[in-house]
Amino acid sequence: MGELTREQYQRFVNPRSIAVVGVSERTGPQAYNLVENLDQAGCDCRVYPVNLRAPQIAGHKAYRSLLEIPEVVDLAVVSTPRETVPGVVGECVRRGIMAVVVITQGFDDSDARGRQLQQELNAIVAGTGTRLLGPNTIGVANLLDRFHTSFQKFDLMENGTGWLCQSGTFVLGAAEFSGGLGIGIDIGNGADVGFADLLPWLAADPRIRVINLHMEGLREGLRGGAEFLAAAANITARKPLVAFKTGRSVAGARAAISHSGSLAGDDKVFDAAFRKAGILRAQTTEEIADLNKALLTFREMKGRRVGVVTISGGAGIAAVDALGLHGLEVAALSGVTREKLQLLFPAWFEVDNPVDFWPAAMRGGYRETCEAVLELLLEDTNVDAVLFVIAAYRTTGLTVIGPVLESVAARAALRRDKPVAFWIFGANGQPAIAHVERGGAVAGFASAERAARALSGFHCYVSEIRDTPQPATPALAGIDTERARALLSEAAGERVLGAQTLELLDAYGIATAAVRLATRADAARIASSLGYPLVMKVASADIVHKSDAGGVRVNIRAEADLLGAYDAMMKAVGSKVPGARIEGVHLQRYHSGGTEVIIGARRDPEFGPVLLFGLGGIYTEVLKDVAFRLAPLTESDARAMIREPRAARILEGVRGNAAADRDALVQCLLRVSRLMIDFCEIAELDINPVAAGAHGALALDARAVLAGRQHAPSAPARGAKARA
Amino acid sequence: MGELTREQYQRFVNPRSIAVVGVSERTGPQAYNLVENLDQAGCDCRVYPVNLRAPQIAGHKAYRSLLEIPEVVDLAVVSTPRETVPGVVGECVRRGIMAVVVITQGFDDSDARGRQLQQELNAIVAGTGTRLLGPNTIGVANLLDRFHTSFQKFDLMENGTGWLCQSGTFVLGAAEFSGGLGIGIDIGNGADVGFADLLPWLAADPRIRVINLHMEGLREGLRGGAEFLAAAANITARKPLVAFKTGRSVAGARAAISHSGSLAGDDKVFDAAFRKAGILRAQTTEEIADLNKALLTFREMKGRRVGVVTISGGAGIAAVDALGLHGLEVAALSGVTREKLQLLFPAWFEVDNPVDFWPAAMRGGYRETCEAVLELLLEDTNVDAVLFVIAAYRTTGLTVIGPVLESVAARAALRRDKPVAFWIFGANGQPAIAHVERGGAVAGFASAERAARALSGFHCYVSEIRDTPQPATPALAGIDTERARALLSEAAGERVLGAQTLELLDAYGIATAAVRLATRADAARIASSLGYPLVMKVASADIVHKSDAGGVRVNIRAEADLLGAYDAMMKAVGSKVPGARIEGVHLQRYHSGGTEVIIGARRDPEFGPVLLFGLGGIYTEVLKDVAFRLAPLTESDARAMIREPRAARILEGVRGNAAADRDALVQCLLRVSRLMIDFCEIAELDINPVAAGAHGALALDARAVLAGRQHAPSAPARGAKARA
Repeated sequence: MGELTREQYQRFVNPRSIAVVGVSERTGPQAYNLVENLDQAGCDCRVYPVNLRAPQIAGHKAYRSLLEIPEVVDLAVVSTPRETVPGVVGECVRRGIMAVVVITQGFDDSDARGRQLQQELNAIVAGTGTRLLGPNTIGVANLLDRFHTSFQKFDLMENGTGWLCQSGTFVLGAAEFSGGLGIGIDIGNGADVGFADLLPWLAADPRIRVINLHMEGLREGLRGGAEFLAAAANITARKPLVAFKTGRSVAGARAAISHSGSLAGDDKVFDAAFRKAGILRAQTTEEIADLNKALLTFREMKGRRVGVVTISGGAGIAAVDALGLHGLEVAALSGVTREKLQLLFPAWFEVDNPVDFWPAAMRGGYRETCEAVLELLLEDTNVDAVLFVIAAYRTTGLTVIGPVLESVAARAALRRDKPVAFWIFGANGQPAIAHVERGGAVAGFASAERAARALSGFHCYVSEIRDTPQPATPALAGIDTERARALLSEAAGERVLGAQTLELLDAYGIATAAVRLATRADAARIASSLGYPLVMKVASADIVHKSDAGGVRVNIRAEADLLGAYDAMMKAVGSKVPGARIEGVHLQRYHSGGTEVIIGARRDPEFGPVLLFGLGGIYTEVLKDVAFRLAPLTESDARAMIREPRAARILEGVRGNAAADRDALVQCLLRVSRLMIDFCEIAELDINPVAAGAHGALALDARAVLAGRQHAPSAPARGAKARA
Repeated sequence: MGELTREQYQRFVNPRSIAVVGVSERTGPQAYNLVENLDQAGCDCRVYPVNLRAPQIAGHKAYRSLLEIPEVVDLAVVSTPRETVPGVVGECVRRGIMAVVVITQGFDDSDARGRQLQQELNAIVAGTGTRLLGPNTIGVANLLDRFHTSFQKFDLMENGTGWLCQSGTFVLGAAEFSGGLGIGIDIGNGADVGFADLLPWLAADPRIRVINLHMEGLREGLRGGAEFLAAAANITARKPLVAFKTGRSVAGARAAISHSGSLAGDDKVFDAAFRKAGILRAQTTEEIADLNKALLTFREMKGRRVGVVTISGGAGIAAVDALGLHGLEVAALSGVTREKLQLLFPAWFEVDNPVDFWPAAMRGGYRETCEAVLELLLEDTNVDAVLFVIAAYRTTGLTVIGPVLESVAARAALRRDKPVAFWIFGANGQPAIAHVERGGAVAGFASAERAARALSGFHCYVSEIRDTPQPATPALAGIDTERARALLSEAAGERVLGAQTLELLDAYGIATAAVRLATRADAARIASSLGYPLVMKVASADIVHKSDAGGVRVNIRAEADLLGAYDAMMKAVGSKVPGARIEGVHLQRYHSGGTEVIIGARRDPEFGPVLLFGLGGIYTEVLKDVAFRLAPLTESDARAMIREPRAARILEGVRGNAAADRDALVQCLLRVSRLMIDFCEIAELDINPVAAGAHGALALDARAVLAGRQHAPSAPARGAKARA
């Protein structure tokens, strides 16, 4: 369908004229009258209701059809019964209307007839200058320009957040989910206009400071994952993106399919995709809200060391727990800070972080103590952020706490290089939070955990994503693309590539333990050229589970054992899998040292190649203790993958084993990434195991699953040019 | 100190007369005047301020000392400077005052002088009829009888919750943390009165329906863990206990030590202790609040199957994710329910759970549809609870949503056998939650995750704890206590018990692979009596790391290898550990089959023996993937331990291995539990590995750490009589 142009985008979010097709005469709270709501929003665009019977709607002259409207409107909003929608959209195309919002439900979100109707809509707008948002959408809510297409009366609380979502809920509820709304767009079923179309234009609006994404899944093919990620990767270094991806549980994913007609991807792949593009992921609606608040309020955070100021020792300990849970540290205050603090306190009190200010406040005054403690912490170079814990009781209202909060917030406003977050508890907590946030310099949260999580998410953004273009994919020497191409050509038509997979890896510069095919006649000669000890595996395309068939023998130590093992294997295999065609055996040097790891890749239909790394063995398999990243891997991606499994400490060397050669594993991962990008006919690849020794890593066994050559997108790195 | 009597308890929480020593003349918001606050609470007890200079305090005649007060008051509250506190408490004892609250800080919570002063306080009240609450406490807040000792003006919101805490924060903030307060008591430093004293009396108050515990740690010895657990275990089947244990992170634990002068236990041991006593654990302050709301509101929940009613498909999917995250299921609606629901919807809409009611509401009315859908779900026997997802926008206030909420809540009130929880989003969410909760029949939450977590916690309480006396510790046959006693007597004075540990296990009916000491002369004879293959380990008290010293050889297959192996071992050990005294070797049958597991125990200073179970090997060790439970184990404890490690699926048999004999592992755990209870001189015990085969489990190696015989409490099972 081509790119969404700036002109088309503008007609969706800020039209000068709008036709509303299918609006009722009723007004009032339960009328769900879009025209009435639009007037109340204060928009100055020209509104043309279309209604067959009513002469006017909510004070606007009504027209019997789109064709009677005296101008070509910028935007048409359609909410007629679903069978009539293709006709109306056809009229829009014929009148040259560039932007159409279809609110009506009952398309891909419903039955077979609905899916057919959605295809009709696609066909009608394809190749025209008309773009379609929806169906099954509440459309657009642009509070910055006082325009929206919502049939629900919702909260017109303006702020600097954007929303792109697959459910109107997140536009309508933005006042809660992101503390307000700048521009929100619901793509609904996403028949035409999708995330990748809208994201660059929303990001280009300087009034939008944080963009939120609600995703249930992405549609396969060109308009799916790769394009979205490319668009996102171009934005995140400048402007934070927060994703709320639902359909995480199996049951949730099933519901997602039925809801928006989109295929929900594997949740771990989405994790990898968000990471690749520098998108922050929120797991709950409250986490979205807290992260938005932090991103809108805080400016800098140089490290993870937090100073805690607390009205109560007990609450201070709870705050310290919360910091630990979210990877933050309790700052070790400098000696100077401690000395200055001590002067505020009675002699018996040994001041430390958390600073339990009550004993000082009882001597020096509540407000004065809070100010002084905050200033000392903000001045301390060992402190990167402050968590202020305070109580707000309803009985006293804001009489006591109000001036304290104002004063502390004013001090914080002078030092914006360190975030000051509040945990305010007590029945008056919410009003107190609103009070302390009035100046926009600090952020308040309803629990220590939420404050800590928000600080941690903010720190992640400023330290790892903001102004941080991802390093380029590294150059790799010793890759023989032609040899790999020849190997794959030979295998064309096969579904599974067995022993030759190691040769493919060898062509890409990955160290492999050579495997040689041998018959009884040449086994001894080949064995002595490989060197003992050896592993012997039956070579037969008819035997899938070699081990079960008695077709694997490890640790053959000398020629004396070789032919006996060969004969025993043939006998065992012959009795377990009668009639199997046997080519002989594969011989390979037996490696028993090092730590066994798994390196793999599979091609995701939405995001392209996904790399996998895990420690080998049954525990990892049972625990699903593996790391995923999207190709193309950067070196830092590969290093992070190796650190990520919970069992990764084993690679550092435990129980006297030497540490594994991580550089060799990094190389292995980078080369598999490159291989998957170069040859899209490789659907899956498993190297299992890779023996990770103290010097080098050796692929011992591998197999690949092949697919026909086809378009398979891969995700560009963040910072790369996304739209050609 | 003996038990806290009912009379003493009553004088703390509802005294008829109170002396307040150390109160100032000032009144007003920042005066922190206890007497003024107490009057405002509406208490009708007689109040006697004690002040050297002022003739009256907040309208009450003041006295120059306790001795001048014309009656022996029920309770004295002391907030004089710390140096004067022992004198004042001494006067209380001499006047025969039975209850004293010491608010003053600066005792165990501070410096060396403070710790000394706290010891003085203990000495003063010891053996008298006077009990002391604190020091470093805000004391008591009993809103049910309008009495409190708080110097802070806090929210006097009454409900059926109790609080026992180590920080006044949780009494003062109870309006937020538990939605209100019935009776709250802050034990402060816990010099005298502690959790175990107060818990039975608070639980005996029929007005208190949920009891919350804030714990930073427990003090060692008699007044510590075992006594607390015994008190708790006697309550939880009748009344829910919710614990918020802080000091979870290492940094938090450090802060906990400095705060209340109590030693924070290992967090995993607290988990095991809470589980043993049937105490629900909340991880965050918001989780406490949500759990209290659920426990106060809901009555029954027969299973985990939840029906979801939602205003939006997108929010429904988020709700399903939340249910999955907290172990709840999306109910499969019955055919009848689905048919009846379908009648409410347009034909194109395929109704399922979650029930996205909007398309029906647009036809049949918002309120009517919500009522009808809720009733159908509540009638469905496949549904155990309902999660209702709805929006509340500030723009429309409660005009639209108010009547819907009232009507739905009224329907829910008729069917109290199934909880109805609400997730209400939008900027008007909080008022809407308060509105729907007015009738007391339903509970509202600010996110799907919080609603799901509260339902899950409630279900845990009603299905696993309420009315469920824990089964008795099972009888175990074949235990030879005398033989074990003799073995331990022999080892008296040793710190570590080596090979004899297997004999100890054998005496307790645990299958062990026999180990025999052999010299070069009798090795062949002993080997043939044990049977090949064998493991040989050097026998020497001087060699700790046998493997490193070349002192271990596995899989000796025949007599031909035996003496060669013996000689080689002696040579290796002799060169690696010159001068070590060698007794010979230990021979044991070599077992290579089965899954290796670890069974262990250690004696916690607070809670007595803690049992441990994990899968064997380096992965489990690195991942700390182990289960803990307190002794004495019940059979269901032991079964749960075996299921708990993340890697437990390996015991079910993976990759073609047979499933492990769980009954044998259960027996092994139960017998170790019994051994640890019977012999408190065993400080630690490790059986590593236990070979868990398809039939039986065999202890292959074990060691014990011994301690001097001393008092070591063990925790009685829930339901056992706690107080003699």
